[in-house]
Amino acid sequence: MINVAIIGASGYTGLELIKILHNHPKFQISYIATSEGGEDLVALHPSLHTILTMEVSKADAKEIAKVADLAFLALPHKASMGFAKHLLKLGVKVVDLSADYRLELETYEAHYCEHEDKEHLNEAVYGLPEFYKEQIKKSSLVANPGCYPTATLLALLPLSPYIDERFPIFIDAKSGVSGAGKKCTHNTHFVTINENIFAYNPLLHRHQPEIAEKLRHYNQKEYDINFVPHLIPATRGELIDTYALLKEEIDPLEVLRDFYRKSPFVRLFDKPVNIKSCAGTNFCDIFAKRVDKKLYLNSSVDNILRGASSQAVVNANLMCGLDEELGIPTIAYVP
Amino acid sequence: MINVAIIGASGYTGLELIKILHNHPKFQISYIATSEGGEDLVALHPSLHTILTMEVSKADAKEIAKVADLAFLALPHKASMGFAKHLLKLGVKVVDLSADYRLELETYEAHYCEHEDKEHLNEAVYGLPEFYKEQIKKSSLVANPGCYPTATLLALLPLSPYIDERFPIFIDAKSGVSGAGKKCTHNTHFVTINENIFAYNPLLHRHQPEIAEKLRHYNQKEYDINFVPHLIPATRGELIDTYALLKEEIDPLEVLRDFYRKSPFVRLFDKPVNIKSCAGTNFCDIFAKRVDKKLYLNSSVDNILRGASSQAVVNANLMCGLDEELGIPTIAYVP
Amino acid sequence: MINVAIIGASGYTGLELIKILHNHPKFQISYIATSEGGEDLVALHPSLHTILTMEVSKADAKEIAKVADLAFLALPHKASMGFAKHLLKLGVKVVDLSADYRLELETYEAHYCEHEDKEHLNEAVYGLPEFYKEQIKKSSLVANPGCYPTATLLALLPLSPYIDERFPIFIDAKSGVSGAGKKCTHNTHFVTINENIFAYNPLLHRHQPEIAEKLRHYNQKEYDINFVPHLIPATRGELIDTYALLKEEIDPLEVLRDFYRKSPFVRLFDKPVNIKSCAGTNFCDIFAKRVDKKLYLNSSVDNILRGASSQAVVNANLMCGLDEELGIPTIAYVP
Amino acid sequence: MINVAIIGASGYTGLELIKILHNHPKFQISYIATSEGGEDLVALHPSLHTILTMEVSKADAKEIAKVADLAFLALPHKASMGFAKHLLKLGVKVVDLSADYRLELETYEAHYCEHEDKEHLNEAVYGLPEFYKEQIKKSSLVANPGCYPTATLLALLPLSPYIDERFPIFIDAKSGVSGAGKKCTHNTHFVTINENIFAYNPLLHRHQPEIAEKLRHYNQKEYDINFVPHLIPATRGELIDTYALLKEEIDPLEVLRDFYRKSPFVRLFDKPVNIKSCAGTNFCDIFAKRVDKKLYLNSSVDNILRGASSQAVVNANLMCGLDEELGIPTIAYVP
Repeated sequence: MINVAIIGASGYTGLELIKILHNHPKFQISYIATSEGGEDLVALHPSLHTILTMEVSKADAKEIAKVADLAFLALPHKASMGFAKHLLKLGVKVVDLSADYRLELETYEAHYCEHEDKEHLNEAVYGLPEFYKEQIKKSSLVANPGCYPTATLLALLPLSPYIDERFPIFIDAKSGVSGAGKKCTHNTHFVTINENIFAYNPLLHRHQPEIAEKLRHYNQKEYDINFVPHLIPATRGELIDTYALLKEEIDPLEVLRDFYRKSPFVRLFDKPVNIKSCAGTNFCDIFAKRVDKKLYLNSSVDNILRGASSQAVVNANLMCGLDEELGIPTIAYVP
Repeated sequence: MINVAIIGASGYTGLELIKILHNHPKFQISYIATSEGGEDLVALHPSLHTILTMEVSKADAKEIAKVADLAFLALPHKASMGFAKHLLKLGVKVVDLSADYRLELETYEAHYCEHEDKEHLNEAVYGLPEFYKEQIKKSSLVANPGCYPTATLLALLPLSPYIDERFPIFIDAKSGVSGAGKKCTHNTHFVTINENIFAYNPLLHRHQPEIAEKLRHYNQKEYDINFVPHLIPATRGELIDTYALLKEEIDPLEVLRDFYRKSPFVRLFDKPVNIKSCAGTNFCDIFAKRVDKKLYLNSSVDNILRGASSQAVVNANLMCGLDEELGIPTIAYVP
Repeated sequence: MINVAIIGASGYTGLELIKILHNHPKFQISYIATSEGGEDLVALHPSLHTILTMEVSKADAKEIAKVADLAFLALPHKASMGFAKHLLKLGVKVVDLSADYRLELETYEAHYCEHEDKEHLNEAVYGLPEFYKEQIKKSSLVANPGCYPTATLLALLPLSPYIDERFPIFIDAKSGVSGAGKKCTHNTHFVTINENIFAYNPLLHRHQPEIAEKLRHYNQKEYDINFVPHLIPATRGELIDTYALLKEEIDPLEVLRDFYRKSPFVRLFDKPVNIKSCAGTNFCDIFAKRVDKKLYLNSSVDNILRGASSQAVVNANLMCGLDEELGIPTIAYVP
Repeated sequence: MINVAIIGASGYTGLELIKILHNHPKFQISYIATSEGGEDLVALHPSLHTILTMEVSKADAKEIAKVADLAFLALPHKASMGFAKHLLKLGVKVVDLSADYRLELETYEAHYCEHEDKEHLNEAVYGLPEFYKEQIKKSSLVANPGCYPTATLLALLPLSPYIDERFPIFIDAKSGVSGAGKKCTHNTHFVTINENIFAYNPLLHRHQPEIAEKLRHYNQKEYDINFVPHLIPATRGELIDTYALLKEEIDPLEVLRDFYRKSPFVRLFDKPVNIKSCAGTNFCDIFAKRVDKKLYLNSSVDNILRGASSQAVVNANLMCGLDEELGIPTIAYVP
């Protein structure tokens, strides 16, 4: 068994990490921490009553280095790099679920804050396994992608060589409320979002530069990414609709089928996807359609699994020399 | 036109008061206040954009006395009596939506706090119009009933003379989330209550003594009230299921039909009621059934209308010599 | 009072017509019919219990002509024109909520079926009051727009002269389940759509040609409309996100503010709109934003009010020489 | 591996059986059938795409006897016994999820229909493992309890010796919509149940005699069971509130803790339970409280897991000599 630590266990992604790792055949949770510590795990997550009894520590890098080979950081950005740099120096592998190591320095500092761990930033690998598997295997620091970029890029990257980059790409995203985190805010109040839907940060969201950067890296050219996220009255799941113009009249579903022939966690559908059929799993479900040169992509993930915690465990599997599918959920919660 | 003030306009019941009074043929909103004041009404309630532009004042009793004949207080308990006593001395009629004047002194102080306006407490009339209409007409201070007591008592009071008081009465209540107010808390977070239901304060809720006291007053004897409220994943509405034992095998629906023959705001159904058919209205919908001596009552109200704001306006109608039905909503929001 | 008939009273739009007309100061419901008749109105719509008691007839044109000056047809397409033509010949004004008179003959027959009332098709006026008010006033036959075209066109038409028509316009629409009608189907089953969202008929929906045709009429040129509707887990409301490319860097919100200066039923917001703030009203709420030459439009309506029944009554007001605002709901159901 | 068949795979409980058995370490699904057969499993349950490819047969007892040692019957009552009797004669063990073998002959025929397999009815064991484990181990035919009786009896049976049977027991139950099955009906239409809650079949539901009969068997005396189920706007889960009078002032939570000391699938809580914390698992979560002699029980299960499919697999585990916990889900879906 390989010992792993979960830092930031109080939120939804922390809980999902616990749920996956508790049943994982090769990983063993040896350390759980929150920023404060001293809490009772079952008080944080009552559903774990009788399932898991563990002390919740105040995160301490040296303690972690003693008891774990790899740490999952489910912390806010900035806090995450502040902690990761110590772990990395102590030889602990890190899967970071925050934004801190996802972007190039310039992009990061333009959209977040000053970077405090430039040393490791260059070594970090972007944890989208379908595209960076070999690098992830060799890495000690994997930056787990954002939920929106995951679902968007899995549909968009394979088709991007066929897309006419002179025209804007419009991405209309819809996310369940768990994506907004456990914090109680006006937007996450039941009365606000029930029987409602609204866009937020239109054309301004921080996941826009993340998508743009990965497209640029993949194709060595610039794409004009326009991203509008929405909150929907559902807890889990994320649906992405992407609109673009093609350079030629290819069959987008065939391109995707060919590309993902050997990818266990991407499923292609010949009709629109829905968030319920993949909620509870690490799947990204994708449908695509072309009319003339107009391309429509329709992709769906569980925002806190494929968009966060289960993808993090796939990355950890790869970093530790395990099969990427080991212990990863594939049975949807439906109905 | 009669000028009225709304004190405590930021919450859901404040908004409902505005919605009703804005279209009321005889009342005119002349003053709107919150505890802080200085806010923009449309910022508080964006749905009022282009509908109503008014300054939101910091509540001031003397100012109110200048511009309004009657004030609706949608304030937290304790704050409410602290403010009401000044208004009453200045000759302003008060409909108080808090708990402050609903109970006898002893009951109040046992479940809330020390009473700060004992002077007016004795003059206050309990604002359940079907039972206290004549007193309300003559009163300057009406204590608007709690939402749970409203729906419970309207079903229970007319049948209470037939109920065997030696046996406990069990009341299983279900409320939409708006009943918990606009404040963001763990329980009102979408992720907590969506796809969920749970009891809270079982056998401990403050509406239990309110129900018990009104039953005692009505019948001059003690009933053993056991009240368990639940939160349900809906915004509006409240369903009450009441279980009791009868002294004789009466037809409960007939008793109710007879009792409410002339009551415009109680509707009787011969099958179970639902919260959607009365949401948006001042109706209390009731179904009743008896098996042997066991009595089952099933009543439904819109918790922030009949359970608060529209009942408050009915009371204001009566206090001002108007027809009780004037300007009161009766068309449900369904679907 | 002007007597009006409602034909097709069993569905959601039929119910909304009843709700509006029952409280309308100048219209009086003199006839209610379904295709079968003989039903009890309260059995169809239990929320109307004690509110409205009327016989539900089997629709008969001659009977209607005797008792009503204007008829609202809330019937399926094809059935509607089969009935409207008789009413029109009998001198009854018609507001048709179906698609039958919305489109040019050729467009209609390409997307629906053979047209059975070509005689009146040419006289029909498209019932979007902000654009065809004068024609509606003189018309005996108004084709009430579809819900999606209403919300889309109100945002798009005023800006269309500035849009580069060589680039596709992408419309990503989200509708509450009431838009799918009262019929029980797999997609409207609670378990299917709760905690879910999915696109349906992407780039194939019948409202796509309706939007395209109205844009063409308005600008005398072709636009490439690409429409993808989604079903969301909400009952009411519709949110439309439209993406286009501009010819010049105008301020879209200013254009809209200027255009709708005198329109009582369009509200402009400087942040994203939401469906809850206009649910229950005839408002179309619009937000707009430009980045470089990319245009983002964000509009919201109550799909069964502004998208159907309340817009139908606005049209009827105009056709009967009444003020367009008479009896039209403007107070949202929120919270 | 032990081969098992699932008969009735199209519904929600059929899907849940597939989900559990697909990952079960000792059971292997060798046969899947619906009443019609010839369907594509992924067409029935799109979430299984890429997970499980199997032919769906038209149920045939002889074929099943060739390929399976045990069959799960997820069929409607009546159809189930018509099929079970053949399987049993062919030596196939049966876990029947219908009502057909749950009740004594007389009770069954009074509430369902004539019994068509009296021969096996007497051999059937009621599949509530906490109470009938030893009999289940030796049985070839287990009648899986109804969802409501499961959650009710697990809370009520251990306390029943302390309950005063001269007074009625009131059971107020709340179920998610999946309990009403996959069939599209008015009550399961999203628009009907969203933002709603209502009782159905109050004091008339078929689970009432099932609860009463098991209490009688356990205590050798009659209890007066009064059962009112409600539908709530949630997909999964069931909450039961039970109200009774005690003979003495025992500590109900202590009685339960003591009783379930060795039961892996019952969890006791010292505050009210909720349906989300056990949705996705085989747990029954219970809270209990006493005030004077009044007893309040509050229990929760996943209606299609503990209330159907996962309990069925626990029973199959026991019937096949396996550990009861083998392959049974315990990690809740929350959030």
